[in-house]
Amino acid sequence: MTFLSSLGKASRSAPLASKLFLLGTLSGGSIVAYSDSNTEANKKEQPKKKKVVVLGTGWAGISFLKDLDITSYDVQVVSPQNYFAFTPLLPSVTCGTVEARSIVESVRNITKKKNGEIELWEADCVKIDPANNKVHCRPVFKDDPEASQEFSLKYDYLIVAVGAQVNTFGTPGVLENCHFLKEVEDAQRIRRGVIDCFEKAILPGLTEEQRRRNLHFVIVGGGPTGVEFAAELHDFIQEDITKIYPSVKDLVKITLIQSGDHILNSFDERISSFAEQKFLRDGIVVQTGMRVVSVSDKDISVKIKSSGEVVSVPHGLIVWSTGVGTRPVISDLMEQVDQGGRRALATNEWLLVKGCENVFAVGDCASIAQRKIMGDIANIFKAADVDNSGTLTMEELQDVVDDILVRYPQVDLYLKSKHMRNITDLLADSEGNARKEVDIEAFKSALSGVDSQMKTLPATAQVAAQQGSYLAKCFNTMEHCKEHPEGPKRFRTGGHHQFRPFQYKHFGQFAPLGGDQAAAELPGDWVSAGRSTQWLWYSVYASKQVSWRTRALVVSDWTRRYIFGRDSSRI
Amino acid sequence: MTFLSSLGKASRSAPLASKLFLLGTLSGGSIVAYSDSNTEANKKEQPKKKKVVVLGTGWAGISFLKDLDITSYDVQVVSPQNYFAFTPLLPSVTCGTVEARSIVESVRNITKKKNGEIELWEADCVKIDPANNKVHCRPVFKDDPEASQEFSLKYDYLIVAVGAQVNTFGTPGVLENCHFLKEVEDAQRIRRGVIDCFEKAILPGLTEEQRRRNLHFVIVGGGPTGVEFAAELHDFIQEDITKIYPSVKDLVKITLIQSGDHILNSFDERISSFAEQKFLRDGIVVQTGMRVVSVSDKDISVKIKSSGEVVSVPHGLIVWSTGVGTRPVISDLMEQVDQGGRRALATNEWLLVKGCENVFAVGDCASIAQRKIMGDIANIFKAADVDNSGTLTMEELQDVVDDILVRYPQVDLYLKSKHMRNITDLLADSEGNARKEVDIEAFKSALSGVDSQMKTLPATAQVAAQQGSYLAKCFNTMEHCKEHPEGPKRFRTGGHHQFRPFQYKHFGQFAPLGGDQAAAELPGDWVSAGRSTQWLWYSVYASKQVSWRTRALVVSDWTRRYIFGRDSSRI
Repeated sequence: MTFLSSLGKASRSAPLASKLFLLGTLSGGSIVAYSDSNTEANKKEQPKKKKVVVLGTGWAGISFLKDLDITSYDVQVVSPQNYFAFTPLLPSVTCGTVEARSIVESVRNITKKKNGEIELWEADCVKIDPANNKVHCRPVFKDDPEASQEFSLKYDYLIVAVGAQVNTFGTPGVLENCHFLKEVEDAQRIRRGVIDCFEKAILPGLTEEQRRRNLHFVIVGGGPTGVEFAAELHDFIQEDITKIYPSVKDLVKITLIQSGDHILNSFDERISSFAEQKFLRDGIVVQTGMRVVSVSDKDISVKIKSSGEVVSVPHGLIVWSTGVGTRPVISDLMEQVDQGGRRALATNEWLLVKGCENVFAVGDCASIAQRKIMGDIANIFKAADVDNSGTLTMEELQDVVDDILVRYPQVDLYLKSKHMRNITDLLADSEGNARKEVDIEAFKSALSGVDSQMKTLPATAQVAAQQGSYLAKCFNTMEHCKEHPEGPKRFRTGGHHQFRPFQYKHFGQFAPLGGDQAAAELPGDWVSAGRSTQWLWYSVYASKQVSWRTRALVVSDWTRRYIFGRDSSRI
Repeated sequence: MTFLSSLGKASRSAPLASKLFLLGTLSGGSIVAYSDSNTEANKKEQPKKKKVVVLGTGWAGISFLKDLDITSYDVQVVSPQNYFAFTPLLPSVTCGTVEARSIVESVRNITKKKNGEIELWEADCVKIDPANNKVHCRPVFKDDPEASQEFSLKYDYLIVAVGAQVNTFGTPGVLENCHFLKEVEDAQRIRRGVIDCFEKAILPGLTEEQRRRNLHFVIVGGGPTGVEFAAELHDFIQEDITKIYPSVKDLVKITLIQSGDHILNSFDERISSFAEQKFLRDGIVVQTGMRVVSVSDKDISVKIKSSGEVVSVPHGLIVWSTGVGTRPVISDLMEQVDQGGRRALATNEWLLVKGCENVFAVGDCASIAQRKIMGDIANIFKAADVDNSGTLTMEELQDVVDDILVRYPQVDLYLKSKHMRNITDLLADSEGNARKEVDIEAFKSALSGVDSQMKTLPATAQVAAQQGSYLAKCFNTMEHCKEHPEGPKRFRTGGHHQFRPFQYKHFGQFAPLGGDQAAAELPGDWVSAGRSTQWLWYSVYASKQVSWRTRALVVSDWTRRYIFGRDSSRI
């Protein structure tokens, strides 16, 4: 994603210049003047634009909209929210380190600076009908019969970016009694919930047991979100709350329940153990190897995996932060396109939903079903063997090696895992000597282990954003690439693919651990933890903001927290 | 109120200094280091402190708590909110000019920097029982049976500062279909409501009539709050909203309904007509001489006073901002102390509730029943006539004149209205010559017009704050003033009153009118309107903030609005 493109957003309108003169320059950054061009006129000149309908305005949807050339398409967006939320900062919002308003940006604001205009409706998509190129939507205004009439939209291309929903794994009582951390409203509710727990705990006439119960905060799920929330909550309580509720400060307890053996198990194990030690010092109780069996308004029942014993613990507030589930509209679509029973929509490497011709899916609701090289091995061999000799010379192989690497990214991963430089190394004989040529059997046997390196991409913002961006680029070059395909060779049918397949670049991941410490896994197996990593986290998260407004607000929120602490008013 | 006392709040704790070193100085203002003294130890030394229970944490309650010496009393506070809200900025919150969080400050934060500690419970007072010196309270956590058990508190002194509630004047449908503007939550709801109206209006399949209805914003009440909200809404729509909803911008209409002949009728008429002309230019429709007769979810019915005709107008959103009503707990207390049927609790000039010995009432829930001088005239004469001659010499009068002016402030107002310098001028004979002495009849006749100058104080933040502060000062000097009364002479019973009566000082009032223009009525009949007044408004409102945190946030919100505009995300 290029975030530099949002530079223009620092400016709003013509009178701005004079206002800035009064106010002085806030950021010291350069602010580029901007003048609106007549979007109406532009729009009417080309009446026959293809209609692109986008469902969802999360990471994937917004990256797509930001990078799409909206002058070439008639773009309609359906989303239950008229804003984009910078979800990686949601844990910070739960405790007021950052304000909710600072991490959201109006979708129309994000797109309005382009030549062209999108239509956005605040509605839920209730049914996707790929057979008729139609989606059915219901506005979110449930209380207003007039404004909640269902409507349907025709599309030429559909971009499904509706994300995922929480996954309760069928655990009874979770939906009714737990907080989640997927939406901005969730974070705001948790913030009020935490304050309520303290206000309840100091009420007159309660027993100490009741006070302790109200102040027992339970987090289910030891992934990055759960860990960050636990850390934020601990800081909030230690740095701000205990000063104003001194009478109950010794009754507070934070418990993190993880079903696996370690928290942060998607991270390098050095980070995972650093986090566990930090939490031990902080007094956050980490309980691993536990599975939640049920939740009530006052208690949570947990099964200890090793012994099978079930224990029930009283709680004041639970945050449930485990895995992702499938939205009903996606399950329904999967039934229609013979993908029933999956967790997410299967797409090919070009993000096209399998079984559809013009429906693309990006972000948490989708999963790329990567093609196995072994399924195509005969075709690859045949396509490479240009002289039909029945054997591949190294020269013949060299001609297709780039296409293979692009089409089957697992090959590259496999080579790296074997510390090899290129495919010819794979084809060496048993003594390690390079061969001059190989037959189909030797070729198959050399590549037989490659498909083991296929990986499902994680359900993260990073993946979603890259997918949205990638798809926008494809749409922007659609006409050009019809004539000049830029993708790899089609081994089965000949010719070339129109586009290069989507390829994910992992830029690393952070885990803020509280007390101004963070851990990070950076590209190249680089692991870092401590205060300096927290400052790296600050700068990366500030730079990744979607607009200058949110960037300025987030940075000022961090500063405000240092000076004045977090506010504990219950609003 | 002294706002300088909040200076210390800029600092939080010992580690602050090091943090500030990292961050540099934000404001350039001086930040005073602060060290907590051991409050627990202080508390236990004096076990027999009088118990003061405060109901409410609005302007009156917070001024009282801020200025009270909480080491001398055992202070318990009952309030449905754990924060104080700077209510004059509520209209700015409705449109996102200022964020809700920026105008609230945690009550515990406001009081924690003092030597001593208060107890605060988030609860509604449901019954005041002055006969038994008790209040009954119900915690606000309705969903939690354990944490919503009623509790009661004994008091030695009770401070009633619960404020008022909205006054619907019995108009049907108002409670169900109108927004109000008394609490922070109200302002947040209005903000979402305004965005919703625009989101509804652009939905596909609506008729133009339906779109127009959704975009018809109605404000009932032309007082400062209603006018400011209308102005904010107009600015929000013009400066921010129409840019991102261009297709419906011409359908927007704002109507302000006022029952009187002019808006802002508590202001000087120059301001009132300036506002009306400004609104006319802005396209805000001001309808005077109208009374709302009923409201439904889609329509508002209005009676034109002059013709008696009733017209019904479709609306998208109504903000009801007219007058103040009585809270049930106050009505109930009034019944108990023989004040039934009044709008507000009658207190004497020392803010003591009439009919009670230890219950004080401040702010919007109370009203000072000022003593008429004519009721005491014989006693005054008798007390002044020290030689019992049956006539008052000017020397005798001079001895009591200060006491009269303090005890009956209407005398001073009356003199000013007659352009007189002192009471002796009042006693001049019909030709204007000073008299040497007066008898009781001449004395009575001279003072007969004085009581016409008695005024009820308006239900404003300014009055409430001054009352709270005044009462705190009385409580702080209670012991000292028992021995050394500082009040005026008691004309009936002899001796002196313990304290000087409460006297309101009017520092003027503002009416922001949008487009960076404001009108102001300042002390000394000074009227000002325009852009410079808006800057005066900015500086006064920034200086009046209750803490350095809210001051910094409010100023940064204003700056943010200038640079980035108001956010229209619906959160």
